[in-house]
Parts: sequence; C-alpha cells; structure tokens
Amino acid sequence: MDADEGLASGKCRRGERGGISVIRKIAIGVMGPGAGATLADLQNAFQIGQIIAREGWVLLTGGRNAGVMDAASQGAKQANGLTVGILPTDGTGTIYEGISEAVDIAIFTGMGSARNNINVLSSDVLIACGMGAGTASEIALALKANKKVILLNDDAGSQVFFKSLSPQNVFVAGTPEEAIGRVREVLG
Amino acid sequence: MDADEGLASGKCRRGERGGISVIRKIAIGVMGPGAGATLADLQNAFQIGQIIAREGWVLLTGGRNAGVMDAASQGAKQANGLTVGILPTDGTGTIYEGISEAVDIAIFTGMGSARNNINVLSSDVLIACGMGAGTASEIALALKANKKVILLNDDAGSQVFFKSLSPQNVFVAGTPEEAIGRVREVLG
Amino acid sequence: MDADEGLASGKCRRGERGGISVIRKIAIGVMGPGAGATLADLQNAFQIGQIIAREGWVLLTGGRNAGVMDAASQGAKQANGLTVGILPTDGTGTIYEGISEAVDIAIFTGMGSARNNINVLSSDVLIACGMGAGTASEIALALKANKKVILLNDDAGSQVFFKSLSPQNVFVAGTPEEAIGRVREVLG
Amino acid sequence: MDADEGLASGKCRRGERGGISVIRKIAIGVMGPGAGATLADLQNAFQIGQIIAREGWVLLTGGRNAGVMDAASQGAKQANGLTVGILPTDGTGTIYEGISEAVDIAIFTGMGSARNNINVLSSDVLIACGMGAGTASEIALALKANKKVILLNDDAGSQVFFKSLSPQNVFVAGTPEEAIGRVREVLG
Repeated sequence: MDADEGLASGKCRRGERGGISVIRKIAIGVMGPGAGATLADLQNAFQIGQIIAREGWVLLTGGRNAGVMDAASQGAKQANGLTVGILPTDGTGTIYEGISEAVDIAIFTGMGSARNNINVLSSDVLIACGMGAGTASEIALALKANKKVILLNDDAGSQVFFKSLSPQNVFVAGTPEEAIGRVREVLG
Repeated sequence: MDADEGLASGKCRRGERGGISVIRKIAIGVMGPGAGATLADLQNAFQIGQIIAREGWVLLTGGRNAGVMDAASQGAKQANGLTVGILPTDGTGTIYEGISEAVDIAIFTGMGSARNNINVLSSDVLIACGMGAGTASEIALALKANKKVILLNDDAGSQVFFKSLSPQNVFVAGTPEEAIGRVREVLG
Repeated sequence: MDADEGLASGKCRRGERGGISVIRKIAIGVMGPGAGATLADLQNAFQIGQIIAREGWVLLTGGRNAGVMDAASQGAKQANGLTVGILPTDGTGTIYEGISEAVDIAIFTGMGSARNNINVLSSDVLIACGMGAGTASEIALALKANKKVILLNDDAGSQVFFKSLSPQNVFVAGTPEEAIGRVREVLG
Repeated sequence: MDADEGLASGKCRRGERGGISVIRKIAIGVMGPGAGATLADLQNAFQIGQIIAREGWVLLTGGRNAGVMDAASQGAKQANGLTVGILPTDGTGTIYEGISEAVDIAIFTGMGSARNNINVLSSDVLIACGMGAGTASEIALALKANKKVILLNDDAGSQVFFKSLSPQNVFVAGTPEEAIGRVREVLG
C-alpha cells in the first residue's frame, strides 16, 4: 500500500468540474478556549478529535498547544487522523513555540485573532467546545459566513444568544457523539 | 487658519517617546449591523457619530454604506468630524461601490470579515450599536484583545452573554449620551 | 472656521452614487525601507510627504517610526497634512511602540507583512522611495492589483525588473517633484 | 496498515518541547504564475510536485486551478503526495470554483493577495517557478521573513534583482532536480 491509500481512504468532497472529480477533503473545525478550557471541555475535545479521525475527516483547529485545540488534535492523532492547525503566530523564533505537538500541517498566518475567520471559512462544519471570547468570535464569524455551528457546552446563555443570531445555523449537543451526529446530518 | 488647525483641534493620544510628543488621534469604533439595523439603531448611531465628532475624536467604522456604519459616519460628518472606514472589500471595480459616502478615509482590506479584527485593534474604545453576527464577532474580538466595549441595545441576551465573557470590559448604556459618558470614563 | 473646513479643503474623489457625492479623500501611498533607508531616500520621502500635504492629499504609509515611512509622515505634518499609518503591529503593550510620531490615524492590523496588501489597496497611487524586500513586496502587490507605481530610486535593476512585470503601470522618477508630477497625471 | 501509516511515512520536523516530539510535517511552497505560466513553468512545476511528494514533504501552493499552482499539485498527487492550497477566495458560492482539483487540504482565507504572506510563512523553503507580479510579491515577502527561496526560471532580471535584495537567501536553479537539491541542502 502506498502513501496515498491512507489519504484516499479519507472522506472527500467529491465534486465535478469539467467532468473531473475534486478530491478536497472534508474539514471539521473544532474551536474552543485555550487556557480557559475546563476539564470537561478537554475531554469532549479529545473524544471529538478521535471520532473525526475515525470518520476520515480532517481536523482543523487554531493549532496552539493549549486547551481545546490541543486536546482535539491529540485525540485525532491517537486515532491516526490528519490534523491542520491555523496558527495566529508567524512561525519565527523557535518555530515550534506555541504549536500543538499533534498538528501535522501548521499554517502560520502571523495575523493574531484575524486568523479566526480563516478557521471558519476553511471548515465545512464547526463544533464549539466550551466558551470564551475567542471561541465566541469564531462562532459569530461562522454565522456571518452562513456556516453551521454545533455548540457543545453547558452555558445556556451562549446557546440562547447564538440561536437568536441565526436559529437555522446553530445546534446544541450534549455529548461528543451527539455533536458528531449533527455534523453527519449537516454534511448530508 | 491653515488646513492643519482643524485637525490639530482634535483630541490626541499624546505620549512621550524620547521626549517627542506623539500625535495619534483617539479613534472610537462604532460597530453595528448593516442591513439588519433597526430604526433605533440608526438613530442612536447617528447621534453617537455626532457626539464623537464634537469631542474631537475620530470615528472608525466598517465603512459600508449600510446600517450603523453609514448612520454613524453621516452623524460625524454632519458635526464636521473625521471618519475612517475599514472596508471588507478591495476597492476594485467601481471604487465607491459599497462605501458610505460619509467616509473620509477608506481603508480597503480585501479581507472580508477578517477585517473586523482591524476595526477592533484600531479603536481606543468600541461602541456596539444594535446586534447581529458581524457585530457579535467584533465585540468578541474586542474582548479577546482586552478592549472596552459599550453595548447600546435592548437585547438582554447579548448583554448577559458578553458580560459573562469579560465582566470588567463590557458596559451597557441606555442612550447615546450614556455611551459617550462611558467612553470618556474609559479614556480617563 | 470649524474643524471641518481644514479637512474639506483637501482633495477628494468625488463620485456619484444615486446622485449623492462621495467625499472619500485621495490617498497617496509612500512605501520604502525602514532601517535600510539611505539618506537620499529619507530626504526624498520628506519632500514627497510635504508636497502630498500641500496638494491636499492624504499620505498613507506603513506607519512605523523608521526610514521612509517616518520621513514622509514628518514631511506631511510639517506641511500640515493628514497622515495615515497602516501598522504591522496590534497596538498592544505600549501602544506607541514603533509608531511614527507623525501619524495622525493609526490602523493597527496585527498582521505583519500581510498588511502590505492593505497599504496597496488603500492607495490611489503609490510612490516607492528606495528599495528593500518589504518595499519590493508592496510594488509587486500593487502591480498585481493593477495599481500605478512610481519608482524613485537609482537602482536600475529594480526599475528594469518591475517594468518587465507591468510596463504600463510602472514609472521611474528622478526627483520628488517628478514623482508628484506623475501622480497628478495618473489621477487625471 | 491503517490510514496513518501513509502519513507517518512523510518527513516531519521533529523537535523537542518538554521532551515530547513534535510531528509537524515539512512543507515546501511552490509559487508561480497562474494564467501567465509558460509551458516550461508548468512542466517544471509538475516535476517539482512529483519530487516533493516522493521526498515525503507536503506541497503547499496558492491552491488555484491555474498555472504553476495546479501543475505542482497535479504532480504531487500523481506521486501520492499530500497537497495544501491556501486560497485567496472565501469558499462561498460554488465551493470548488477556482480550486485545483489536486488540492487535498483547502485553506480558504478570503483575503485575496494578502494570503501570499501566509503561503510564505507556512513554507519551510520556497521554490518560485516562473515569474509574475504575484510570484514576485511572494518572493519578496519570503525574503522579508528571512526564508530561503529557490528561483527556477530563465529570467536573468529577476535573478539579479532578488539576489541584490538578499544574497544569502536567494538561489538559482536550472532544473527541478537542482531546485530540490537546494531544498535538501537548506533543510540540512
């Protein structure tokens, strides 16, 4: 088996353009707090990363070695997935500084929080695991871009608020499995 | 009186660097919905723009000819202020397409909603007038950047949610005057 | 005379949109090296800044307190102009760190060199004063965006190279006055 | 053999952080014109993509279905590589519009040419295949970021110019094999 078969086994967005299939892989964004993540957030993120990998999807996160980003990436790698991290930093100095060790593909934006919009645009569906200011910005940017977002937290205030912004695009899940179930539905 | 005196009368952030004063003007960001703005949002934004101009501050908005951005800019120009618009577009095609006619300085980012982070970083204080997905992203990005945000809306859900994210950085105002009062306090 | 008259005396791009005039000011971008600027570059930049201000145009630079950016801004302020600086930094820490003291309006992008594209898109015409890697990137991005660029340097290699990329958009000037003459021609 | 083994066989930047290895893959950026690419550029890009894949490196391009970006990605996929495309578009509308069919991981920036800086920062080494305004901006941004760039073209003007900007970071190669040889040297 060659190097590509592993990749080829991943789920792809197959489209048609001039009769030629497009192989772009499905990317699921997992967003959540860094330093402010709770233990439950970390456990949920790890499990979500695992399931995403098992589904053959690419995991896309903010790439830092902290909180939900790191936990989801660790989970995906434990299940032999492919992980992409969109970093706020520019990769200078010590190039590994601040990067999750479980990120395969590091995209260095050097753009700080403006990179949050890239996370959103590059994800087919987003799961927000926990809550914080950065996470809230990603959910709001996702809704602005008309993306579906699944909230996995026990923060009723955020659920009510984001549903009020875009009722048809916001879903609430109680467990990682339920969150992934919603992703499957959205992908159709 | 020469062209500069008008400018010089504006309030500036005077700092010291090697004994030389810095003249950067104070910029107040006014954020809010475009197409989704209510009549009350527009009236509030217009008044806020007027007062910002009278205070000698620069008005900074998202620059589009829609909703709160446009109303605030119109208010500021009616009071002879200086207005900056940070556009999501790149200024190609018809260069005025989509720009508020009341914007003096148009910054074309060509970055879509990623420009929301520039709005935030370039404002000394932010006022969010009304609510929507784009506005919510700007508030969240502002809190992430540790900026003060004054909410001027009657949406209790958003007030509760953003206060929960950063209690010390979120203020609620009931009127334009109250919002500007808070800005004065924050600027100290 | 009120605060606006000084501003109103500036040259604007007057357009028509639904019969309503647009007041956006003309912005001339002056690009050039920071630390690597030569004495001639600095003198040229200062003079160009002065003339831009006298013409009633806004000066747009990269905003740092170094090299061509700073010299052009100082020149413009000496002639009572209005100066905009698009900074690579995010304005955190000491907010004046790295900003030219002669910048009126500081746009903090927090995007590093990616902000070079904003400089380009936001300028009606660009003058490149001196040469370096950052300056070369701005010239190239300007040509990619189909903007006119006036080169003011004695570096034949760069003149030949950029003319080869886009013969109709690159002009070479020997003096600040000649550069400004070209700007007037381009603005028409 | 599971899905990961193929990936695991790729070359990685193994570093140490607290004694834990980092798995980030080595990414080689291949830059070049879209519509303006010559037949030689396309042939070179295809071969370079093939060799990059065989080396186990990730191929990083601007992701569009045009010119050098597309040819390099096609070459890499033919050799069972992994391809990343950093798109200038935001992925809205028809999500495949403009994307090379040979891109596995599509990063939608929605930032136009400002994304060129992300291409640069995310590549361990860059190869510029052919020449044009966009390509020139990427080379210049790479030199600004102190990255090594290998020029594969027969345009003496560009070779002289970029070498003058940063003699230690610019290399000229006559063939794809020679270009890859330089990459190996730079990676050490």
